[in-house]
Amino acid sequence: MDKNEEKQREEEREQVVSPWEVSSSGKIDYDKLIDKFGCQRLDQSLVDRVQRLTGRPPHVFLRRGVFFAHRDLNDILDAYEKGEKFYLYTGRGPSSEALHLGHLVPFMFTKYLQDAFKVPLVIQLTDDEKCMWKNLSVEESQRLARENAKDIIACGFDVTKTFIFSDFDYVGGAFYKNMVKVAKCVVGIFGFTGEDHIGKVSFPPVQAVPSFPSSFPHLFSGKDHLRCLIPCAIDQDPYFRMTRDVAPRIGYHKPALIESSFFPALQGETGKMSASDPNSALYVTDSAKAIKNKINKYAFSGGQESVELHRKLGANLEVDIPVKYLSFFLEDDAELEHIKKEYGAGGMLTGEVKQRLAQVLTELVERHQVARAAVTDEMVDAFMAVRPLPNMFD
Amino acid sequence: MDKNEEKQREEEREQVVSPWEVSSSGKIDYDKLIDKFGCQRLDQSLVDRVQRLTGRPPHVFLRRGVFFAHRDLNDILDAYEKGEKFYLYTGRGPSSEALHLGHLVPFMFTKYLQDAFKVPLVIQLTDDEKCMWKNLSVEESQRLARENAKDIIACGFDVTKTFIFSDFDYVGGAFYKNMVKVAKCVVGIFGFTGEDHIGKVSFPPVQAVPSFPSSFPHLFSGKDHLRCLIPCAIDQDPYFRMTRDVAPRIGYHKPALIESSFFPALQGETGKMSASDPNSALYVTDSAKAIKNKINKYAFSGGQESVELHRKLGANLEVDIPVKYLSFFLEDDAELEHIKKEYGAGGMLTGEVKQRLAQVLTELVERHQVARAAVTDEMVDAFMAVRPLPNMFD
Repeated sequence: MDKNEEKQREEEREQVVSPWEVSSSGKIDYDKLIDKFGCQRLDQSLVDRVQRLTGRPPHVFLRRGVFFAHRDLNDILDAYEKGEKFYLYTGRGPSSEALHLGHLVPFMFTKYLQDAFKVPLVIQLTDDEKCMWKNLSVEESQRLARENAKDIIACGFDVTKTFIFSDFDYVGGAFYKNMVKVAKCVVGIFGFTGEDHIGKVSFPPVQAVPSFPSSFPHLFSGKDHLRCLIPCAIDQDPYFRMTRDVAPRIGYHKPALIESSFFPALQGETGKMSASDPNSALYVTDSAKAIKNKINKYAFSGGQESVELHRKLGANLEVDIPVKYLSFFLEDDAELEHIKKEYGAGGMLTGEVKQRLAQVLTELVERHQVARAAVTDEMVDAFMAVRPLPNMFD
Repeated sequence: MDKNEEKQREEEREQVVSPWEVSSSGKIDYDKLIDKFGCQRLDQSLVDRVQRLTGRPPHVFLRRGVFFAHRDLNDILDAYEKGEKFYLYTGRGPSSEALHLGHLVPFMFTKYLQDAFKVPLVIQLTDDEKCMWKNLSVEESQRLARENAKDIIACGFDVTKTFIFSDFDYVGGAFYKNMVKVAKCVVGIFGFTGEDHIGKVSFPPVQAVPSFPSSFPHLFSGKDHLRCLIPCAIDQDPYFRMTRDVAPRIGYHKPALIESSFFPALQGETGKMSASDPNSALYVTDSAKAIKNKINKYAFSGGQESVELHRKLGANLEVDIPVKYLSFFLEDDAELEHIKKEYGAGGMLTGEVKQRLAQVLTELVERHQVARAAVTDEMVDAFMAVRPLPNMFD
């Protein structure tokens, strides 16, 4: 191993981003990630183009760079401009009953994309994956999938344009045929070793094939050349790099991607919010009081140690979690700018920013809780029914 | 590598028996295989027991040791004796359109088992496997599966007790759930390397799960503890060793096995008959003339180089293919003994034995051809329909 290799390995050790692990010794360097993965930065001209094509203001996650990277988004938009529709594909691994705020990010954004482009959407619940990775029983994985489906539906998706499916229920037929077509093209075991169980090695095709319209004959029969756009967090990129490698070899378009950064843990931006660490996460089931307490107790502050010092130096906004969270969920651009300016200059204290954040998130979470309480089992059945969607492109 | 290891590797090089390769530098040593795999010899007392329990003479493949090894056959018979039925599971990888005689062996024997024990049977057509291994298209693999199903049906299976399925059509639901349960228990990649595509690594659970009754809810609903007996050639043993390791961990009986030796190539007993070498194989589609010609031209003879020498020394029956084939397909024990005695003593010449073999095989093949010609598409549909079999245990 020469010096350069050593240096490279050292750098890789500091920042690990894969579908199975997100960790970093410092703040995650998204520029480095774009270089490493080989995707493209989602720049202002693309944001403007989305606004022009959809005739509506870009989502806050788009204009503030939460979704910051892409693959072939231009191609999707070129085709769309010529009148060619596409479909959206996103998903969730149902590993826990309660979603946290980070889990909502891709769904809130996907809901915006569905409304703005007026396109159909498939949502994969990878209960098979979680059964294998988290050692859950089949029944428990499927129960969690259904619970999570309720939270997803609560984000406001249009049942006439949306198909939600559990892998355990849906794998088979055309979907399974595509899995086999993908599997025979993928050499190597995707970074797994002989110590991993073979379920890990065999899973990637399951996540790949919803990118291909023929996997959904009840939706896209005769539309094998329909394009697919996948909104997801950037840690899923390796799955879809593989998918894009394989796609042209088996007769499909490469899926396009629009990729987000991570919603950070309360403790700071070295990873993503994790449902398995209750102190790092704000759950959509949290009460106003719990939200307030967790923010006050755990949210990493860029403020100074004393009021005097803070008034003098101001907050370090780069590392401040309350400001980061507000940049995700405080929609009012002017207010956000005001807070950043005042807080950064020391005019506003951490406590005040945290209080405002608690308000914003409590509103968001309470709205979600009301919406979720209204989701009945019949609605879940309706979204998950294997059916055609005759008006999905209207 | 010490001397012992070297010796062991040398021995292994000489004889390779796995689901993916059967080859040997000499005659295959089945005793060594039993030791290596850890299965049990199927001895005369077991043959007698089968005869007693079924009330009919044992199949020629049983009484002549073609099926020579087993795992837990005694347990199946113990349960059967107490009135507990079981089901049979066998299969075929549809890699070629025309079956050869070796392919018929497990099906002829399975037909006998079904009739003798009056039990249901599931037959898996692994079109997914062949699509991946042989680089066939999905459509071509499925076409071959259906063609092969016709040959299988022509062996005389009872449609009221038999379910034939294509993996491409059937994988999904309870079957897929069992695949995931198996996959998460199997560590290591089954002898494959990082250079193999991941389809190879992910296939073993597909072949494993028909051993579990819950994979067939339309057949065995509520019968999760039904036992399974698998008649197969011994090269499939590694798949089912894995299956037997996993079974108790996911709540099922270990499947029992009854395992055959290989039907040798015309050229001699160093491997098994291969459909991809037309000169090594007798196909069920061959004409009487082709059978006669191939036997005369290619069947390895244990006879001596000249008639004089032959009359003096007799044939070496140990290596003689015509005698070997007759021991599979000439049902008359007395005639077989007579031929072996006369031929071994030099009283009978190779040409005469080959002539008798050609007769026997021509009869067999012509009978098969007539039966196959009578198999309609509707019959294939009937065998492959996903349906309950209400009288399968009668």
